[in-house]
Amino acid sequence: MTTEELFSIKIKEPDKEIYGQARQKWDRKAKPIDGLGAFEDMVSRISAIDDNLCPDISRKALVIMCADNGVFEEGVSQTQQRVTMDVAKLMGEKKSSVGIMTGNYPVDSFVFDIGINSEDKPEGVIDARICRGTKNFVKEPAMSGDECLSAIDTGIKTVCKLKNEGYKIIATGEMGIGNTTTSTALLCAIMGISPDLVTGRGAGLSDDALKIKTEVIRKGLALHRGEKAGQRAGSESDVLECLRCLGGLDIAGLAGVFIGGAIYHVPVVIDGLISAVAALTADRLVPGCRQYMLPSHTGREKGIAVIMDELSLKPVIHADLALGEGTGAILLFPMLDMAMTLFNEGTAFGDTEIDQYERFD
Amino acid sequence: MTTEELFSIKIKEPDKEIYGQARQKWDRKAKPIDGLGAFEDMVSRISAIDDNLCPDISRKALVIMCADNGVFEEGVSQTQQRVTMDVAKLMGEKKSSVGIMTGNYPVDSFVFDIGINSEDKPEGVIDARICRGTKNFVKEPAMSGDECLSAIDTGIKTVCKLKNEGYKIIATGEMGIGNTTTSTALLCAIMGISPDLVTGRGAGLSDDALKIKTEVIRKGLALHRGEKAGQRAGSESDVLECLRCLGGLDIAGLAGVFIGGAIYHVPVVIDGLISAVAALTADRLVPGCRQYMLPSHTGREKGIAVIMDELSLKPVIHADLALGEGTGAILLFPMLDMAMTLFNEGTAFGDTEIDQYERFD
Repeated sequence: MTTEELFSIKIKEPDKEIYGQARQKWDRKAKPIDGLGAFEDMVSRISAIDDNLCPDISRKALVIMCADNGVFEEGVSQTQQRVTMDVAKLMGEKKSSVGIMTGNYPVDSFVFDIGINSEDKPEGVIDARICRGTKNFVKEPAMSGDECLSAIDTGIKTVCKLKNEGYKIIATGEMGIGNTTTSTALLCAIMGISPDLVTGRGAGLSDDALKIKTEVIRKGLALHRGEKAGQRAGSESDVLECLRCLGGLDIAGLAGVFIGGAIYHVPVVIDGLISAVAALTADRLVPGCRQYMLPSHTGREKGIAVIMDELSLKPVIHADLALGEGTGAILLFPMLDMAMTLFNEGTAFGDTEIDQYERFD
Repeated sequence: MTTEELFSIKIKEPDKEIYGQARQKWDRKAKPIDGLGAFEDMVSRISAIDDNLCPDISRKALVIMCADNGVFEEGVSQTQQRVTMDVAKLMGEKKSSVGIMTGNYPVDSFVFDIGINSEDKPEGVIDARICRGTKNFVKEPAMSGDECLSAIDTGIKTVCKLKNEGYKIIATGEMGIGNTTTSTALLCAIMGISPDLVTGRGAGLSDDALKIKTEVIRKGLALHRGEKAGQRAGSESDVLECLRCLGGLDIAGLAGVFIGGAIYHVPVVIDGLISAVAALTADRLVPGCRQYMLPSHTGREKGIAVIMDELSLKPVIHADLALGEGTGAILLFPMLDMAMTLFNEGTAFGDTEIDQYERFD
């Protein structure tokens, strides 16, 4: 994929008429108006995306992008870099956190090695390794242009394939030691905000380590954004440059998944900070992608709320999650199932002796 | 049950040591510290309540209390009173909203007619009718002392029975036209707050009807609280009198369920406003009950947040729900299942080559 190809992608808006019809279908259900609140909106959005007033989201995928980050060597994590591959292996065996959590729940996981710093090719992990991790962004750009575009392309093609295989909704997840550092740096660069506002403790950091992490992000911004540090990234090319210099292969891959969702009309669920930054990046690279995104949770990292505001999305789960792997996104699934069952099978006022409620807003 | 019997109930605190051990068990899982956030706390609380470091919550019940409210005749709802029985019938047939939503989810529903204004005894609805609805609280006390205690007793005995049948967690739900009016009045009386602050639109009201509802609540408070309107209810007897004069049989029944949860050590999930007011009432009638409660959602009615603050509980679902029937409480269940699976079956650091994360707080 070339830069020109990426920037020539045009996103068609989900059908507003179908959305309106879905809202009317909700109002006819034997329940108070807007009784299921945010879930009525989410289900109606899925209807519009799927162009279908009886959408079926039973076939679900979880796409997990795993990659290493050169900036790890600056001491931004309390663990070792090899943990990325260790956990990816566990994921391939369905023994990582998200694998255990979904053991009794029907979702198919696709674990991608999009750039782990390892020679291993473990079973159950899809080999899509572009390189053995990114470069250290306090010294040089994290990726080459080709690496960055290639990671985005991997994400887009993944959605195309999953859509062809019949998947109707995709959750996003990631694993990569150091990736709250890369995603926070990218968030700061794109939004023009200070790392003091949004740098968090990731998987757990002491006060001193948090200071180091914040300083590392500041250095990265100074090196790659120069005078533009503190300014919002403007054009699509500017955003792509932020991603290339400060991001990670996991973030670029997930940005591709969000772009793919918008191209192929598959709703994609945002997980935590890394996934949210990928969502923001996708919408800034290819405007309109946000209309195919579903939020899931607010998480413990402050940056998530900033991004949700920017994308005008309201996550329904507020549980201080900070696990990654897509665990927050998949918590949304069974709730969506329940709402969808009511939407598709629920009793309408017309089938009862009860009068429909009147809408006053 | 007599007043003396009710006030002589003593609640044993859930075992703090088991709670601490459960938190340590979480920290040994191969994931970031506190990665599952609020769910780690909830699961640890369930452990302590069940006195078990491998709790099994697979057997779940939903207790729905249905009743009519005399204050309905003041014009506080846009629908007819017979809708309470109409929906209870649908519930008995598993065709109401919560029945449809849980169609593919393993939870057993127990629908109680604890005081519907009807002669009907529909199939699937447990006949526990104390009387045909309460009296109109702007004219007289809603219940007699015996009716009120009898409703509480129904709730307590229900939990005893469910516990004996092997249920390990109970969600609460209700149905009763006019019951956001009764529960808001009771909330105002117990907390000593103004109805202007917390009166909401329930299942849907025009601006004019909202004014009527607020005024009706104010009248009820003036009649039954007199000089004490605006003051926090003090003693247990005072709280019981608030419940008797302003509450509903559904609220009293659910208060009994929360008290029963605390007596028999079964976690009980709070749903929306009516359920939350019942939870608050239970904790004020029998101090310590709150330790056996799990919050689920914030809902659209403002009173819920007030009660959650008062009980120091933090709901994880923020979705502007306003449906009732226990729909918000049951949305929590599948998320709890996923968290519980990780707690019971998740890979520990000791089973991997990964070092455990260090806790810095």
